[in-house]
Amino acid sequence: LFLSIFAGIDLGGTNIKIGLLTSEMKVLAQSSCRTESERGFDFVIGQMVAAVRALCGQNHVALASLRGVGIGCPGPLNLKEGRVIMMPNFPGWRDLPIREALHQAIGLPVVLENDANVAAYGEYRMGAGQGLKSLAMFTLGTGIGGGIVTNGQMVRGETDTAAEFGHIPMDLNGRLCGCGRRGCLEAYCGAPGLVKRFGEAVEDGRRSVLVGQGRKCEDLTAKDIFDAAAGGDALAGEIVDRTAYYLAVACDVVVNIVDPDIIVFAGGMTAAGDLLMKPLEKYARERFFPRPKVQTRLAISRLQGDAGIIGAALCAQNTFETSAS
Amino acid sequence: LFLSIFAGIDLGGTNIKIGLLTSEMKVLAQSSCRTESERGFDFVIGQMVAAVRALCGQNHVALASLRGVGIGCPGPLNLKEGRVIMMPNFPGWRDLPIREALHQAIGLPVVLENDANVAAYGEYRMGAGQGLKSLAMFTLGTGIGGGIVTNGQMVRGETDTAAEFGHIPMDLNGRLCGCGRRGCLEAYCGAPGLVKRFGEAVEDGRRSVLVGQGRKCEDLTAKDIFDAAAGGDALAGEIVDRTAYYLAVACDVVVNIVDPDIIVFAGGMTAAGDLLMKPLEKYARERFFPRPKVQTRLAISRLQGDAGIIGAALCAQNTFETSAS
Repeated sequence: LFLSIFAGIDLGGTNIKIGLLTSEMKVLAQSSCRTESERGFDFVIGQMVAAVRALCGQNHVALASLRGVGIGCPGPLNLKEGRVIMMPNFPGWRDLPIREALHQAIGLPVVLENDANVAAYGEYRMGAGQGLKSLAMFTLGTGIGGGIVTNGQMVRGETDTAAEFGHIPMDLNGRLCGCGRRGCLEAYCGAPGLVKRFGEAVEDGRRSVLVGQGRKCEDLTAKDIFDAAAGGDALAGEIVDRTAYYLAVACDVVVNIVDPDIIVFAGGMTAAGDLLMKPLEKYARERFFPRPKVQTRLAISRLQGDAGIIGAALCAQNTFETSAS
Repeated sequence: LFLSIFAGIDLGGTNIKIGLLTSEMKVLAQSSCRTESERGFDFVIGQMVAAVRALCGQNHVALASLRGVGIGCPGPLNLKEGRVIMMPNFPGWRDLPIREALHQAIGLPVVLENDANVAAYGEYRMGAGQGLKSLAMFTLGTGIGGGIVTNGQMVRGETDTAAEFGHIPMDLNGRLCGCGRRGCLEAYCGAPGLVKRFGEAVEDGRRSVLVGQGRKCEDLTAKDIFDAAAGGDALAGEIVDRTAYYLAVACDVVVNIVDPDIIVFAGGMTAAGDLLMKPLEKYARERFFPRPKVQTRLAISRLQGDAGIIGAALCAQNTFETSAS
């Protein structure tokens, strides 16, 4: 039995994740390593090759037998040219030919895609979107990314700028976003924005179990705030409720522009489960037009951290699998 | 020589427009009549049939020789079922089987589409989008509609709710919109919203050539305000500038979600030309991410009022033209 095997790489600011996927859509194996982007582009390319090679070795797959590699990168990218334009969490990374560099180093065909787009594609094919016609996905972390799949295809846009859900405006005169605009969703609901909103309320005199006894707001994480909300802390609860509201507004915008079958949320915050999703559902259905109000599904990602490697490997399969097997 | 001929109908709140289009994409003839929706659904169906029949007669085309009819309607619609769910400017029109009713009355195959979607499709095929890969269109009038074409196809969405650009939020606590939400683009930049913003500034004590001498703000139209701005009136100029700003914000949202090659503006306000488009371009390019900042085109519609009938006829052609001719 000859199986086609594809590698999927999810290049993150902290970790690189790697997976091997068969053309029958089984995940053979996966691993991860530190990115250490501060050691430079060539180092990271080397890390990725070594990680794929090691994973192949452990699983008795010859590296040269892989049919291709898909890599999901944070943007902005130039997909046609296979280049990184800039990567916010990779100091000094600018205008780098990542597709060609990885291809040369690994000796296999490589396809480059946006990280949130491949995660959405993985979720569409093998996760919460399975069997549905279209999907949009919010990836909630330090930044907020997005991906759209319609008619079975990722929506990349003409300048690879589609599905940047983190920059849907909540308040045109609001919080300064890392992108330079004011009031973007990411400035409120990215993990640092959430912590800042909490800290500002504390400065305004609000109390919380999270502060006092020498604990400072700067040391808090978004998870601390979700945990406190789950434990009944009123201020943390309000911050979470407002987070759900902003995400619901953004869902409504996505529905009123692309109108997918399902909107999926992935990332650390979704570990909060109903604490996040119940108010998000309520606010979203209050806003939606009549038909999406009853039809459009909202759900937490099923693949979560694996969506990226699965989606990247599926992109490699779509690009490089030939009818000959 | 046998030509396939298709009829396109653009059903508006005030007028019904009709066009005959050949499969070679030539507009053979067009006409329009009053909608008079207050006379009821059956009356309007009859008006449409009479208008198509008359246009055929004047142009020596047998009605029965038409290959099909496309009709663009204001929404919300249920396209799969061919039904009008509700039409804001058609009193009492609710849950009506418009596709089947028109089919029975005219004896020809009928395809139903959203009015702004067909206008976008017409513009994509035969207007400002010709030769480009994708297009988004804003239709500026009493309401603000939208249409998206990617990969050669209209984006309808799964609940026929896609491309509702009029409901992109400008201010979550802002002006009440007809949809029930607060702060929608339409509440600011639809013609009545624009006139209201002007009236509020006058109430706040601002002066303008448009008021005084017994003239009241309620009697003004959006065109009056654009004309006064063109004539140098400072307040009218500010209202137009702010209109351009809001539209630019909405363009940025559309780019960050679907990222089309071109964004096209249609409707009465675009008669203002550079007075609207110059500040709109400036504000949009200030907001856009780096690649759309230089690549994404912004333009006024070339087909304008004809986009709807042309797009509707093209939809009929796509749906009903068979390989046999």
